[in-house]
Amino acid sequence: MKAKLFPLNKITVIGPGLIGGSIAKACIERALCKNLAIGARDDELNLLTKSGLKANLYNHFGLSVEGSDLVILCVPFEVLESILLEIKDYLGPETIVTDVTSIKKEVIRLFQSILADKVEWIGSHPMAGSEKSGFESSNSKLFDGSITILTPGLHACSETLHCVKTLWEKLGSKTINLSAEEHDALVSEISHLPHLLSAVLMKSVSLKSLALAGPGFRDITRIASGCPNLWKSILLTNRQSICEAGKKFIMDFEEALEILQTGDEKALLELLNKANVLRKGLEKK
Amino acid sequence: MKAKLFPLNKITVIGPGLIGGSIAKACIERALCKNLAIGARDDELNLLTKSGLKANLYNHFGLSVEGSDLVILCVPFEVLESILLEIKDYLGPETIVTDVTSIKKEVIRLFQSILADKVEWIGSHPMAGSEKSGFESSNSKLFDGSITILTPGLHACSETLHCVKTLWEKLGSKTINLSAEEHDALVSEISHLPHLLSAVLMKSVSLKSLALAGPGFRDITRIASGCPNLWKSILLTNRQSICEAGKKFIMDFEEALEILQTGDEKALLELLNKANVLRKGLEKK
Repeated sequence: MKAKLFPLNKITVIGPGLIGGSIAKACIERALCKNLAIGARDDELNLLTKSGLKANLYNHFGLSVEGSDLVILCVPFEVLESILLEIKDYLGPETIVTDVTSIKKEVIRLFQSILADKVEWIGSHPMAGSEKSGFESSNSKLFDGSITILTPGLHACSETLHCVKTLWEKLGSKTINLSAEEHDALVSEISHLPHLLSAVLMKSVSLKSLALAGPGFRDITRIASGCPNLWKSILLTNRQSICEAGKKFIMDFEEALEILQTGDEKALLELLNKANVLRKGLEKK
Repeated sequence: MKAKLFPLNKITVIGPGLIGGSIAKACIERALCKNLAIGARDDELNLLTKSGLKANLYNHFGLSVEGSDLVILCVPFEVLESILLEIKDYLGPETIVTDVTSIKKEVIRLFQSILADKVEWIGSHPMAGSEKSGFESSNSKLFDGSITILTPGLHACSETLHCVKTLWEKLGSKTINLSAEEHDALVSEISHLPHLLSAVLMKSVSLKSLALAGPGFRDITRIASGCPNLWKSILLTNRQSICEAGKKFIMDFEEALEILQTGDEKALLELLNKANVLRKGLEKK
């Protein structure tokens, strides 16, 4: 494949929700392409029309990707297969396809089985977002300062990788390459397990104590207000890795309770100090 | 005791950290007293002098409370006993004493054993704050929209309760009365257990995954950057309640992992939906 230079001629975003909408807005604001096409459901298209976003809108996903240099699939994993089947015959040999889902082994399997070698594809996972969803919550700066994981696999050519990497960099994100297996394991720790912990905590505390919730409890449970259907799909798809991370967490938490129960002041302070230092390290990035 | 009317003649704040500093600033801004006295360590007094806060500063805690209508002890539980011993002979019969620590059974025990019936006292616990600490992070609006738990016990007269309640209301907080036992149990669920979970999660995830941390992980671990020494003391003092809440959490979390492991889509969606609705309920308050 020939190297693609930005601005690309045509970028297609399918699924203009929080992530897709933010990509679309940034593509326009930062002039990343001459033509921006958006494929969406009819109800989403109404919102987009009202927003005045300068893009060509399609309710036919196949037509939205015709002649595109880069197709970014911003839909939940559950509908990815049906959309790939809808668009595959409209993709040209020079089109690059990527997605933004937070699971990758299964996505790569879908890409491989449906797109095979017909087009170039690479998985993307921007570690950005919010507990909010929908185009109305999207903004062009969502990815500024974030990290995006790319899962190019072995098949992708260097031009494809370069193009997708450049897209994310222009969207404000640093990129890191991982295998799909590494991705799913690491993300289960840093995103999926925390989500499940947050949801269980939210449900576990008594209603009487909820009336006393302060800012700390609001912070720790913020992600529990994420879209239940989206997260059901993510958690189920990556359940193997999450259950492993979950079991390790339980062991670590039981150890902490043991330290507390026995009143081991030194060990407790060590735990809190270590957590404090690690957390402060995150702020510096 | 005669009913006290705001503005009080003299309020004393001992320990001008995040909470004490915020109370002091609000007392000045909202004219809650004619004279504000602050008792602090020398290094803190330097900060206060530079800040230009209109208060009388004391490094002698006893002198700071002389003639005060209301003394607010904003120091960690660990030093509460020594400060109570330092001030007790300087407290007049018309002085009301309260504290802001997040554990109450032990505080009430201290009040009872040191202050007895010499002065009126009531426990306060503002459910406000941040992972930051120190006077430099304090602000007069910290309590706006918050809830403060009062633990008056059986001995406090209605004028004392009214005075402390009015203080918190003027600081921007709603108040709720609980017994010290109820307080410690509910707060272990809504504040202490979440803190321990956050710290253990921070320490439990791999360093490799930490490099991928997004906004969700930052939210859930924010409280883990709270002051380790302060939290060590809180967690140890309320360890019985926290260990009970922790064991219940582990059971609930193991159930969630079981749901995930078996791929029980309906039960998982139910869990996520319930957490989502409960969390959104917190936003409305």
